[in-house]
Amino acid sequence: MTTPQTFFGVSRRILISSLALLPALIGPLRPISALAQADALPSWNDGPAKASITDFVVSITTQGGPDFVPAEQRIAVFDNDGTLWVEQPMYVQLAFVLDRVKAMAPLHPEWKDKQPFKAVLEGDMKTLAESGERGLLELGMVTHAGMTTDEFAKIVSDWLATARHPRFKRPYTELVYQPMLELLGYLRANGFKTFIVSGGGIEFMRPWSEQVYGVPPEQVVGSSIKTRFEMRDGRPTLFRLPEVNFIDDKTGKPIGINEHIGRRPIAAFGNSDGDLEMLQWTTLSGGVRLGLIVHHTDAEREYAYDRQSHFGKLDIALDAAALNKWTVVDMKKDWKRVFAFE
Amino acid sequence: MTTPQTFFGVSRRILISSLALLPALIGPLRPISALAQADALPSWNDGPAKASITDFVVSITTQGGPDFVPAEQRIAVFDNDGTLWVEQPMYVQLAFVLDRVKAMAPLHPEWKDKQPFKAVLEGDMKTLAESGERGLLELGMVTHAGMTTDEFAKIVSDWLATARHPRFKRPYTELVYQPMLELLGYLRANGFKTFIVSGGGIEFMRPWSEQVYGVPPEQVVGSSIKTRFEMRDGRPTLFRLPEVNFIDDKTGKPIGINEHIGRRPIAAFGNSDGDLEMLQWTTLSGGVRLGLIVHHTDAEREYAYDRQSHFGKLDIALDAAALNKWTVVDMKKDWKRVFAFE
Repeated sequence: MTTPQTFFGVSRRILISSLALLPALIGPLRPISALAQADALPSWNDGPAKASITDFVVSITTQGGPDFVPAEQRIAVFDNDGTLWVEQPMYVQLAFVLDRVKAMAPLHPEWKDKQPFKAVLEGDMKTLAESGERGLLELGMVTHAGMTTDEFAKIVSDWLATARHPRFKRPYTELVYQPMLELLGYLRANGFKTFIVSGGGIEFMRPWSEQVYGVPPEQVVGSSIKTRFEMRDGRPTLFRLPEVNFIDDKTGKPIGINEHIGRRPIAAFGNSDGDLEMLQWTTLSGGVRLGLIVHHTDAEREYAYDRQSHFGKLDIALDAAALNKWTVVDMKKDWKRVFAFE
Repeated sequence: MTTPQTFFGVSRRILISSLALLPALIGPLRPISALAQADALPSWNDGPAKASITDFVVSITTQGGPDFVPAEQRIAVFDNDGTLWVEQPMYVQLAFVLDRVKAMAPLHPEWKDKQPFKAVLEGDMKTLAESGERGLLELGMVTHAGMTTDEFAKIVSDWLATARHPRFKRPYTELVYQPMLELLGYLRANGFKTFIVSGGGIEFMRPWSEQVYGVPPEQVVGSSIKTRFEMRDGRPTLFRLPEVNFIDDKTGKPIGINEHIGRRPIAAFGNSDGDLEMLQWTTLSGGVRLGLIVHHTDAEREYAYDRQSHFGKLDIALDAAALNKWTVVDMKKDWKRVFAFE
């Protein structure tokens, strides 16, 4: 990041004119310094959480400072469920699975008498929960495999266009946290490359991550199933197979980060025990690093949950946060707004 | 890409001043238009190969034109061995394996009597070849696993700093094709994101890809082995395991592209049958696309090989090139220079 001092001898008027032209030439403008961005986080209340973010960014962008990090090494990784968008009363992708099973049921009359499909069709969440991981995996494969990658992307987009959250009655893509959107933008404005590193399906996020988060598909890391390359009528396709390829959760997160990004992030953002190893991998390797956990403390505006939660359980990672001096965001206290529509 | 016409009303002098400042602010400058870059490929002789490249770039960057592609969709994928750097008399990574076995031998006295190690230590390439894929895999695992990712990156960098090509007596990182370096730069200057998609090891390329090709680690796709996350003395590490994770060759290339990039490239560059499916995936999906094959026809300046070669065999893909109208670069005729040091 170049600081204003660099511009000695250049007329301020010409400089301003130049800057005005930049967006047209190169897209969104990178600011002159982190300090100029002090109000880039308007949905964050002043306090230690916000200060830990801006202090970190100032440290690593101050050229000549002891903690300066060159732009190409400014990698930030964000969990998705519960960190960037809502994960209650269930993961959005699970809502997708349940809706898809219902939509596909007419072609599968046998599901009426076969678990765990029967439970889904009857809305029997207790029996569904009892089917455990194996039951969920079966539902996941039936709804996520058996089509090309292009077809799956369309299924996801079509579903998101009509699905509504049961409490907020809004599209899931509106249930993203406004303070986190500002944080993504603030980091990018300071030279960061922002990645999503989620336990959720990589192909479930990519159709909308660019539009909603400004994170392009190539910067999304997630869980995946295997695919097979096939020529069909002279056209190349990738066919989705009912076989797990990679689970991007817990120890899988640093592994996925290494595989996809190939360098260690300097900032990591999560909200649950699934993010523990990603936070460790990012912050415990020397140098000024930022680890941050979103603690859901606001039952009124969103949800309040942590150690006992079924989705997004935050227990070991909350203890680790105290130990490792990670920032813990108290949603109720630290966020002026939760959603853009408030 | 913004064209000059956009700047009506803006003083040319101020515009030039602005442009002069751009590199300091944002790194390498994106040019005003593809046409302005007509001599961005000085090591290419004029002819159909060069014209196919510049015609393609003009088509897809002409705003309002029928073939315009928005910048975020300008993904170009490059094979590495034989496309960006030399792959004769053997893959560079195989030279690394052989050297590493020799370097590690003092700690493994048993290798003196154990194949395929014995063959390597005695320089008996015939016996080594007879050990086949299984033998090579064993050598690969011994030299690529059993250390952390950070340690492996250092081993690779240290080796590249001293290893020399047997014929050219130069570091392998100087044996990169100057016309292809220009092509990488030309595409990036026209808004492309350039990726390497190689059958070679992803962690073997990442330590030097940014410096040599301008391709950052997160834009390198390759074959990989599995890793395990471990906390060692309070520090997180990824330990490399002797188990194949992914082979990024042939049908693996579109699969790897989909997994890492998540969108279909619009230009692909290869040189062997291992690149066939990547070229198909890129070019056979509608729209103006560029597929290009480097044909090694220059025994004097580099090597001449194709259908019968052990490394970098080009047979099916050469026939497919004619069928699919992919550009075939005749190295001898189309390249003014092969290496920068010529």
